[in-house]
Amino acid sequence: VIPRAYLVGLGPIGIEVGRALRARGIPLAGAADPTYAGQPLGQLIGDGDAGAIAASAGELYARRVDGELSVAVLCTGSRVPQVAPQIEEALAAGLHVVSTCEELSYPRLRHAELAARLDDAARAAGRAVLGTGINPGFVMDRLPWTLAQACVRVEHVHVERVVDAARRRGPLRAKVGAGLSVEQFLEGVARGALGHVGLGESAARLAAELGFALDEVEETLAPVVGEGGVVKGVQQAAWVRSGGRERVRLELVMAVGAPDPHDRIVVDGDPPLDVLVQGGAHGDRGTVGTVVSAVAGVASLPVGVVTSYR
Amino acid sequence: VIPRAYLVGLGPIGIEVGRALRARGIPLAGAADPTYAGQPLGQLIGDGDAGAIAASAGELYARRVDGELSVAVLCTGSRVPQVAPQIEEALAAGLHVVSTCEELSYPRLRHAELAARLDDAARAAGRAVLGTGINPGFVMDRLPWTLAQACVRVEHVHVERVVDAARRRGPLRAKVGAGLSVEQFLEGVARGALGHVGLGESAARLAAELGFALDEVEETLAPVVGEGGVVKGVQQAAWVRSGGRERVRLELVMAVGAPDPHDRIVVDGDPPLDVLVQGGAHGDRGTVGTVVSAVAGVASLPVGVVTSYR
Repeated sequence: VIPRAYLVGLGPIGIEVGRALRARGIPLAGAADPTYAGQPLGQLIGDGDAGAIAASAGELYARRVDGELSVAVLCTGSRVPQVAPQIEEALAAGLHVVSTCEELSYPRLRHAELAARLDDAARAAGRAVLGTGINPGFVMDRLPWTLAQACVRVEHVHVERVVDAARRRGPLRAKVGAGLSVEQFLEGVARGALGHVGLGESAARLAAELGFALDEVEETLAPVVGEGGVVKGVQQAAWVRSGGRERVRLELVMAVGAPDPHDRIVVDGDPPLDVLVQGGAHGDRGTVGTVVSAVAGVASLPVGVVTSYR
Repeated sequence: VIPRAYLVGLGPIGIEVGRALRARGIPLAGAADPTYAGQPLGQLIGDGDAGAIAASAGELYARRVDGELSVAVLCTGSRVPQVAPQIEEALAAGLHVVSTCEELSYPRLRHAELAARLDDAARAAGRAVLGTGINPGFVMDRLPWTLAQACVRVEHVHVERVVDAARRRGPLRAKVGAGLSVEQFLEGVARGALGHVGLGESAARLAAELGFALDEVEETLAPVVGEGGVVKGVQQAAWVRSGGRERVRLELVMAVGAPDPHDRIVVDGDPPLDVLVQGGAHGDRGTVGTVVSAVAGVASLPVGVVTSYR
């Protein structure tokens, strides 16, 4: 069954998702974004007759036909509190939800009550709610736990991801603080405006999927500083300890000119596995790929907030 | 829900699977193998009280308790016609089936009628039937299609796997024809006694999972010949063409002293992916890992013959 997609949020990723959905043959019921309200969607995402861009999600969901398999694709924000009302609105209108919201990949880590409320709402509606992307959502969680399926026993998983921010679009360079002073960087971090969102979520969901209790989930964040004290990017780590032992460690560097971009997953287990994604999985295109794949396969997702996902 | 496992076939892999199930905390109802009938299972797979080894699967399944979640773990053969009656017996007794049978990873490729009959029987029984292992079952099919989930579009997938047979147990060296003359090798191939079973199955299921029609599925097999005309192993390839274009190509070398053992998955798509399993995934331990993981997760498998499996 091919679902119909309702795209909410036309930032750079939302626009790419819209184009990719069309290319994949998934019909778009339309899109909503107040910035472009009333403009033809075809102008933004290429040819097509998905009508005028709605000013709100509610206006967009009114196009839904009863009984149809429909997915709200929310490309609107990184934090669960911000996206939760949008999820509830989509569920109430009868839609499944696939979102690029980073925290939604494992919402209970930072928002236990809200996550439980969303899970209840999704179950009551008989719909799936999935946060996905390349990271969180793939290279540092789903791919490692898929690899662990080939293991009799897993002692520890270590994932490192190095991204050269110079090869990525402007918003990523801004997000990692490139060009700032250390003082400005620290101020941005304190405001929650800088850094990668979702590393702790990846660590927690990976550990949970591997069967480890989440006794401690810790995170660190620091600037990568270049010549003259100018910030080039960010380095972050997250790890999970369970029963007094570290079980998962994720390390992420996103910096302008970061040498040797790659992803590496090392499973200490039986058998051991050492897997290298040469050059690293592309962040934006990979995120679009995971979103489009999830939308295409939404009918086979379990009901509720989906955090364990193969 | 933790299932109870019924192990059928106590060859080298069956014994390793039995030990791994215990280590993973999955209760073993017992095992069946006429070679060891009447002997305590604990002697073969380590401590435990799984009773005496049964002479037949039927005798073993008689231990099943009505309403329990039970899995027959069939480590008995590589070909579907050989294993099909065992699958039907297990289904009739109320068990799910997880098997190392290589052809069962995509049974419809070579045995369309039998595959349909097994699928009907499994659906009628409300049970899952899964053929798994490291290859087929993981490195050349399931792992590549998991990677493709991060792609907006896939044009072609190329997987190569190089195994140094010198580092593996005797049965593998025999299976690849190491030490034979070319004449003996070709005679063994003609008898169906030599070579890796399942490469075509991996290619077909990977292509099917990626959405490509299986217009042509082709395979080749040749000896790797060393000094003095002595065979060192086997090199095989399988590929799928769809709509006039090659979409999947798998290349496998298993030979004594094969240089640079590894698995490599190259996805030509958007984004492209180039993934290296450094040193290669271990065949036997990886197979045991996939089997134990599948048994542990059997409750979440779909009903029927499962060929698409994340």
